[in-house]
Amino acid sequence: MIHFKEIAKILGVLLVLIALLMLPGAAISVFYEETPWPILTSAVITLIVGVTLFLSFSKEDRNIRKREGYLIVALSWVFMVGFGLLPFFFSEEVVTFEDALFETVSGFTTTGATILTDIEALPKGLLFWRSMTHWIGGLGIIVLTVAIFPLLGIGGIELFVAESPGPTSDKVHPRISETAKRLWYIYIGLTVAAALLFWAGGMTLFDAVNHSLATLATGGFSTKNASMAFYDSAFIQYTAIFFMFLAGTNFTVIYFAVVGKFKNVLRSDEFRVYTVSLILIAVALTIPIYNNGSDDLELSFRNSLFQVVSLVTTTGFISDDYTQYGEGVTYSFFLLLFLGACAGSTAGGIKFVRHLTFIKNSWLEFKRLVHPRAVVPLMINGDRVTGRIITHIMNFLLLYLLTFVMGSLVLTIMGYDILTSLGAVATTLGNVGPGIGKVGPVDNFAFFSPAAKIFLSFIMLLGRLELFTILILFTPFFWRAN
Amino acid sequence: MIHFKEIAKILGVLLVLIALLMLPGAAISVFYEETPWPILTSAVITLIVGVTLFLSFSKEDRNIRKREGYLIVALSWVFMVGFGLLPFFFSEEVVTFEDALFETVSGFTTTGATILTDIEALPKGLLFWRSMTHWIGGLGIIVLTVAIFPLLGIGGIELFVAESPGPTSDKVHPRISETAKRLWYIYIGLTVAAALLFWAGGMTLFDAVNHSLATLATGGFSTKNASMAFYDSAFIQYTAIFFMFLAGTNFTVIYFAVVGKFKNVLRSDEFRVYTVSLILIAVALTIPIYNNGSDDLELSFRNSLFQVVSLVTTTGFISDDYTQYGEGVTYSFFLLLFLGACAGSTAGGIKFVRHLTFIKNSWLEFKRLVHPRAVVPLMINGDRVTGRIITHIMNFLLLYLLTFVMGSLVLTIMGYDILTSLGAVATTLGNVGPGIGKVGPVDNFAFFSPAAKIFLSFIMLLGRLELFTILILFTPFFWRAN
Repeated sequence: MIHFKEIAKILGVLLVLIALLMLPGAAISVFYEETPWPILTSAVITLIVGVTLFLSFSKEDRNIRKREGYLIVALSWVFMVGFGLLPFFFSEEVVTFEDALFETVSGFTTTGATILTDIEALPKGLLFWRSMTHWIGGLGIIVLTVAIFPLLGIGGIELFVAESPGPTSDKVHPRISETAKRLWYIYIGLTVAAALLFWAGGMTLFDAVNHSLATLATGGFSTKNASMAFYDSAFIQYTAIFFMFLAGTNFTVIYFAVVGKFKNVLRSDEFRVYTVSLILIAVALTIPIYNNGSDDLELSFRNSLFQVVSLVTTTGFISDDYTQYGEGVTYSFFLLLFLGACAGSTAGGIKFVRHLTFIKNSWLEFKRLVHPRAVVPLMINGDRVTGRIITHIMNFLLLYLLTFVMGSLVLTIMGYDILTSLGAVATTLGNVGPGIGKVGPVDNFAFFSPAAKIFLSFIMLLGRLELFTILILFTPFFWRAN
Repeated sequence: MIHFKEIAKILGVLLVLIALLMLPGAAISVFYEETPWPILTSAVITLIVGVTLFLSFSKEDRNIRKREGYLIVALSWVFMVGFGLLPFFFSEEVVTFEDALFETVSGFTTTGATILTDIEALPKGLLFWRSMTHWIGGLGIIVLTVAIFPLLGIGGIELFVAESPGPTSDKVHPRISETAKRLWYIYIGLTVAAALLFWAGGMTLFDAVNHSLATLATGGFSTKNASMAFYDSAFIQYTAIFFMFLAGTNFTVIYFAVVGKFKNVLRSDEFRVYTVSLILIAVALTIPIYNNGSDDLELSFRNSLFQVVSLVTTTGFISDDYTQYGEGVTYSFFLLLFLGACAGSTAGGIKFVRHLTFIKNSWLEFKRLVHPRAVVPLMINGDRVTGRIITHIMNFLLLYLLTFVMGSLVLTIMGYDILTSLGAVATTLGNVGPGIGKVGPVDNFAFFSPAAKIFLSFIMLLGRLELFTILILFTPFFWRAN
């Protein structure tokens, strides 16, 4: 028996929160003398449904078990999207259902792919709500990775998100809410800091806040049609690079750095590999960009670093068209869509800890072949990773690639060319934003058919919720279990 | 200490065999009144080196251990290629080193990709030697999968090659040579049968034998520029389909069928999945081929089935250009390059048993999430697969995909477009032959640079020897072990 009433109660609370978070957008509409009614109407509807759900089931007080957990996670995103698309709809700026759906899913999943062809034409209030969907999505992911995924055992990375209670505990650990609170403070603090620096760098306050919301969520929605390429200020671009980098870092690692526990920071294998990889890849890609582009070495390096950090952290801001430097550079940037930053950050995608597990295990497989009787343990962050977790992580990697392959097959069958299909699915599944082919860094997703837009929305959700959370709902085990 | 002398002795024996197997080609040259000297000279050189190596170390009589095993496997292919390319070279039909290398590696690895632009212009004797390289490569793979890989624990499929002694035995089991002999009889018998049927279907005897050699080895070299599209006979094409299918089947399963143990045939999960998949994929792809091509349903089905069986068995014969039916069909055929037929056949690529392990494990991972304390074993062919083997197989799959990705990155950096790079590496790594982009079914590999040809030769070898055999030679564990 699944306790649907308990689920409904929690979804009610979520909707009340969403309604409240819509209000700043309405306020901004008023400030800029736009009509606030589209957003206000949406907030009222969301509030009414939320309060009704909550009050109807407020007497429920059962413990949430794993099975309710899966449903809550999946339905939370569905409900956020279902009500979050109302402002687009009521404003009549986005007229079709599939466009509103795509844009809202892209927001809450922190993807940043857009169907808008002229972003700057949107009312300011709506633009702000669009950025807020990113930021709310980022908040949600922090809750998921700290409190929910460890409980559900999703994706095999629960052990690498520090301070999690581990997969054996059946109830939410009391320390969890404490941890989540600390990480939210960091999230909020970094958002404010980024906004102030963007503002100081020459953005308007409005643009600074919007870009800051999209940066910390590793989202990528910009208020400018040209994305970050609109700002040629080195200060703004390096600021963006720095905060994208932080947003892709495990927030617990940032917490340790803030409280001065640098030993714990260095103990994270994932953080070290993440940092070193970003630098090495950015330096390597500077060469062809310098050779084929400007003769300004600093600019070439900055363009390389910006795009590398943006794609690896799955943010998706763009300051330069990376597809203009030939096949090798384009393909390299395409491959970056499969990295994903650190577990426990707001980044989507595969995550470095999983790649690290695979690479380390490959190395050890050779050792095991030479010494078949030896016990060859795999260590990450100084802890031994069990065979069961290794299997689960490699299975995740393969399932991720299978989803990518099958997803791009669907798009090619719909008639889109192979490169565009590969790019569109890789970037939506990884929650990045820009791809290759016809969805390159200077393109958008407007040309896709309604069916393709709905399909890609599903792919974004699949990627954001680490595949298993969604896919498990389609297995008989889930519905048959006691 | 690695016993290099013992290795040298075995390589000597191998070269003597290669020299002897060159002689039929020389005889055919004489029969067709061509000069036999290029092949004869090659045979004599190979014989002299082989006899010298053997006699120098004939007194060695140590047991071969795992480490010598790896080196013997890798060096066997290197030596076969090194001497096998001499006939091309001496005939002056293939003038550059990299072309001769590519063609010979493509032959011995049973890939079938060619750098020749006019195959029919080649002397008959040389064409025959070219087909023989396939057939010898197929013979070699039977030895490897039956006798050597199980000993080395390569790729995790040793347990699925029936009658293997398992990974714990340290010496070659006496029954092994008996098993290998039986499988060779099947290989030779099927080759003769296919040749007779091709001949009966209207091929010249010469073409029938050549195509038969290439079919049973799942190679794909044709004596015609148009490959199997030269023959519009339904009889010939269905014959080819049937024998490609058999060549992709585990030879032990064929043995069971021959001796009437049909229960053992049906016990093979891999064989059932392989057969059913081929039929389902061929039927599915008949629809777009029928809609976009001729209005002959039988021909559409035959074209679909031929290309599907040819690519999945990694043969690479072509009877129809599969890239002419739109993006979805082209991409589908591209994906088939990653299937690979059955373990214990002459097919290259990933193999169904590995896909089956991954798919089954994915399913069970969901069950494990719902029932975290339950023991959920994975069964294949009625046997339980241990966690260690599951990990090894999933690691193989990921390493295969990583090799594919890195290989295609190298080609894009060399300046080839992304689709061509993906196609070229997928088809050489899988030992198939045709790809997509500029290496589609009606193209060849002549246009690649010398560096790219040498690189792709290495990729073919990597794929043929199941990655680990080659890659382990680059690890410190191998050279440091006692």
